[in-house]
Amino acid sequence: MNRFAFSTFLTSNTDLDQELIDGLVGQCTRREVTRGAYLLREGETCEHSFFVEKGLLKQFAIDHQGKEHILQFAPENWIVSDRASAYFHQPSEYYIQALEDTQVMLVDEAFILQLARNNASFLEFNHRLLHNHIRHLQQRILQLQSATASERYQHFVKIYPDLLLRIPQVLIASYLGITPESLSRVRRDLAEQNRTILS
Amino acid sequence: MNRFAFSTFLTSNTDLDQELIDGLVGQCTRREVTRGAYLLREGETCEHSFFVEKGLLKQFAIDHQGKEHILQFAPENWIVSDRASAYFHQPSEYYIQALEDTQVMLVDEAFILQLARNNASFLEFNHRLLHNHIRHLQQRILQLQSATASERYQHFVKIYPDLLLRIPQVLIASYLGITPESLSRVRRDLAEQNRTILS
Repeated sequence: MNRFAFSTFLTSNTDLDQELIDGLVGQCTRREVTRGAYLLREGETCEHSFFVEKGLLKQFAIDHQGKEHILQFAPENWIVSDRASAYFHQPSEYYIQALEDTQVMLVDEAFILQLARNNASFLEFNHRLLHNHIRHLQQRILQLQSATASERYQHFVKIYPDLLLRIPQVLIASYLGITPESLSRVRRDLAEQNRTILS
Repeated sequence: MNRFAFSTFLTSNTDLDQELIDGLVGQCTRREVTRGAYLLREGETCEHSFFVEKGLLKQFAIDHQGKEHILQFAPENWIVSDRASAYFHQPSEYYIQALEDTQVMLVDEAFILQLARNNASFLEFNHRLLHNHIRHLQQRILQLQSATASERYQHFVKIYPDLLLRIPQVLIASYLGITPESLSRVRRDLAEQNRTILS
């Protein structure tokens, strides 16, 4: 377990001054949650972005029939939040739950906005995060609208390469918006294709 | 046709100073495009946000099979763009096309970022737009993942109340991610329910 994962992440992935990073990380709260625990529930206002230092989170919604729909997974070095809920102080439609025992840094959303107002380089960093989030959501929509089950699975493997062995098949199928039976068929077909290529 | 629609929109919907609004609008370019014309094509880098003063735009992607998938419509007073493409200077996956003869204001994306850096109230305005965009995209994902055909249609009527008579049914079905036959059935069922309630 790396106690300084968030700090290291910021140093490696941003142009922020070390002093600013230390100030930001110092303002964050570290929390350890056990598998199954919730960091956000539907109806609550989201007040934090969650940076995963160790473990795995799942962000999902539950429809009127009680069926779960997964927006995203967040393994190590991912940030997950409902930034719209946080910004507009509106009840979230999402749950964020730990799929494994997880260590997160809680980044206060109000502090992010304040820092963006007062610090030019942090403003750029936050702009980048927001536009990256928009890009991800657009890709998710395109996937749901137009990709075949096989294309969706291959996209999943690309963005979450290390999750295949950490997440039950039924959750992967839910994320992809296909049935577990379709997912089994896709995996069988891809394995068959690989065998053909290698033989 | 209101030659000052964008200026009026900003005055009514933001806290921006009139001087700033005049400066922003003065920097924009007005363009008139005929029905069927494109403002953005897949593979191009999006360089503008398009504010619709009069007319109607459609933002969509085309999949490998040549099938069209509509992300959103933009009638009067809507802003449409591929902000991720603009921000990251990456080829867009989207087309933006006029469904009617349309008058738009072209807002330069680089100018938006520059203004956000230098003006605190514009920064807040841009933050609000970005978070609102995230909220819209999240709602679109939830609709695609979990809403029934009937729920999707009723959501469409709510956000685009004046488009029902301006857009062919086949485009509404494409936006909703259902077949035109499903859409006809949904409309028939809802009309039937209304008759029952009124009788």
